Amino acid sequence: MSNSITFKTDTDGVTDPKGFFASADSADIRGKGNERLDTGVLYSITPCAAAGVFTKNAVKAAPVLDCERVLRVGGPIFGLVANSGNANACTGNQGIADSLSMLQTAESASGSPKDSFLVCSTGRIGDLLPMDRITPVVKSIASRARDGEKEGTKFSECILTSDTKKKTCTATFAVKGNTVTIGGAAKGAGMIQPNMATMLAFITTDIAADSTVLQNLLKESVKHSFNAITVDGDMSTNDTVLLLANGQSGVSLDETSMKRFQQALFQVCDCLADKIVADGERITKVVEILVEGAASDQDAENISRSIGNSLLVKTSWYGNDPNWGRLMDALGYASAQIDQHVIDISYDDVPALVGGDPVPENKPKWKEVVSKPRFTIRINMHQGDGSFRLRASDLTEGYVDFNKSE
Amino acid sequence: MSNSITFKTDTDGVTDPKGFFASADSADIRGKGNERLDTGVLYSITPCAAAGVFTKNAVKAAPVLDCERVLRVGGPIFGLVANSGNANACTGNQGIADSLSMLQTAESASGSPKDSFLVCSTGRIGDLLPMDRITPVVKSIASRARDGEKEGTKFSECILTSDTKKKTCTATFAVKGNTVTIGGAAKGAGMIQPNMATMLAFITTDIAADSTVLQNLLKESVKHSFNAITVDGDMSTNDTVLLLANGQSGVSLDETSMKRFQQALFQVCDCLADKIVADGERITKVVEILVEGAASDQDAENISRSIGNSLLVKTSWYGNDPNWGRLMDALGYASAQIDQHVIDISYDDVPALVGGDPVPENKPKWKEVVSKPRFTIRINMHQGDGSFRLRASDLTEGYVDFNKSE
Repeated sequence: MSNSITFKTDTDGVTDPKGFFASADSADIRGKGNERLDTGVLYSITPCAAAGVFTKNAVKAAPVLDCERVLRVGGPIFGLVANSGNANACTGNQGIADSLSMLQTAESASGSPKDSFLVCSTGRIGDLLPMDRITPVVKSIASRARDGEKEGTKFSECILTSDTKKKTCTATFAVKGNTVTIGGAAKGAGMIQPNMATMLAFITTDIAADSTVLQNLLKESVKHSFNAITVDGDMSTNDTVLLLANGQSGVSLDETSMKRFQQALFQVCDCLADKIVADGERITKVVEILVEGAASDQDAENISRSIGNSLLVKTSWYGNDPNWGRLMDALGYASAQIDQHVIDISYDDVPALVGGDPVPENKPKWKEVVSKPRFTIRINMHQGDGSFRLRASDLTEGYVDFNKSE
Repeated sequence: MSNSITFKTDTDGVTDPKGFFASADSADIRGKGNERLDTGVLYSITPCAAAGVFTKNAVKAAPVLDCERVLRVGGPIFGLVANSGNANACTGNQGIADSLSMLQTAESASGSPKDSFLVCSTGRIGDLLPMDRITPVVKSIASRARDGEKEGTKFSECILTSDTKKKTCTATFAVKGNTVTIGGAAKGAGMIQPNMATMLAFITTDIAADSTVLQNLLKESVKHSFNAITVDGDMSTNDTVLLLANGQSGVSLDETSMKRFQQALFQVCDCLADKIVADGERITKVVEILVEGAASDQDAENISRSIGNSLLVKTSWYGNDPNWGRLMDALGYASAQIDQHVIDISYDDVPALVGGDPVPENKPKWKEVVSKPRFTIRINMHQGDGSFRLRASDLTEGYVDFNKSE
């Protein structure tokens, strides 16, 4: 029996685990008169244990409040309904009613009990959902999903906003002749900084598990994946990661399967998080900022975020400029214990600063590294054992142009 | 006797108060072989009480450390030496020696005692100062300033980096037939977010005052002026505001003069701070964010900074897009007490959100306001009495292009 995990990207994602079905269609939510996929339903033939991690923004969209409520009720979950093009955020009481109506329509059309569906929205803030167009579409796709449509790819497409490509992956491993599968789909692109981003991620698995255990595992996985990325430092009102487990593999989450499940779940989260940064709005680079030797993990995180969100750092990456002075400036205003005279900085494996002193003879090599589409900045603070890894993008004129109006 | 303060901008600035002299010249610090002014000396014929407010960045440039040291020594101050083109930051022990050498050269050439000069640098981080070119220039301009050169305008020009214009202003008021003058010069442009910015500001006055009193007044003035602006959210290694008072007006800072001195000092600081934002790198707009009704002043400040530093908010201003959804998103992730259902937002005097509900019929008017080069966003949180005013700029493609390499 193999101990290994098989991992693939650009899969069907959420419908890869046994017993999960999905359908998607166009409700023309953007009102552009086209048939762009914007509404999807995910459905499991047997009830699921579920876990969710949500935005920490104090301004929460109606569907986020609904998901939190349904998960608090704690009954089995049969599926979820999602839409793009409209975030249903800052939409007052009507928004709350619309969100509830979406999930109730999906529940009844799929013959599922009350409080067994979750709901997610992403897109523009402040406009009401066009419920006259959404309701019939949700009705139709919920019944198609219940009838066995397995359109995982379409589902992964219907949640996209400014993304340029779908984001899916699937991990599998064997336990005593049975195969456990974890599939995921995500969307990202802008308003991307953890805790979390205008990002939605849906993860399904056919392992059998308890909700409380799932919740802890998801939280831990999210911390170092979806919550360790930044495109523009903006945290959205709608960020949601949901995990559903339906038990169809015949394998339970126990001592035998735990370690690999954890690894596979992290791999799925990390892959989707990476795809979100790499498809950030008009970015040209993904930079891994690895801070080590900080006084605490929190210090390391603060330092990495201070660097990863600095406009001057991000623009210099865009310009292929290994401007370590800007790195030093940005880490200097992080809330952390810092002694500027002992810091080491390297670009990939090329030292730029050793014990606070520059290594100017390496300059041509730094430039080479910073010109690559992906590279790592490694920083040792020499203050303790704290570490954090943040994946960040550069900042381009294209981002400004893209976001100057919606 | 008039109680009023006379205020002018685009003045000679630091040499307007009696007994202050200045000289400036080119040391070709940027190594471009041109005669751009980059080194200046400010000198007072009588010893000054002095106060200083500095960057809170943990990575401090050598001249900042020197200023802090000289002010701790606490002796009378005769002047200061400043340069642009090189920040003397992250330059190790050689940088510390160079900074000391600059101020000692100025001291000895002007015949001033030990520890009576301050020193400031601004420009690129990480390169050593070209001391061979700087030392003779400092020697020459320090002796010219001592001999009575009154080149306030040249001094205000020699400190500029990416600024497009000089920033000066002067306030005067009368006390029993004597005139008190406060003059100021500043530079800004990039790495601008309080506490503080790549900004230097020099303020002189001919009032007679105690250093401790001056320090408190300066700190208070800076808090709501230089520390209440943001261009790009980056806090620099070199930020410095210095205030020198030489007593040449014959007026002392006492009960009679205190209130107007405070007002005039704030007016000088606020005017220079405004000029820094308005001359931010390739910006097109200055937006005043006025947060009221927050649970505390700190909450109000956190909310205003969260908005003023949000890339999505700043790009929407640039695009003339009154995207209040992005304002709500940004304030939602501020560290503050927030109830999204009671918030009022208006653009100038046009309501956009009242009690958390949008006022869509005002949309054409919002657009008109946001299209102006200056406007105010007024936010009432309805949580308490806390307030804060932040002046922020938009974010443009020009900023990205300008900063993608140095």
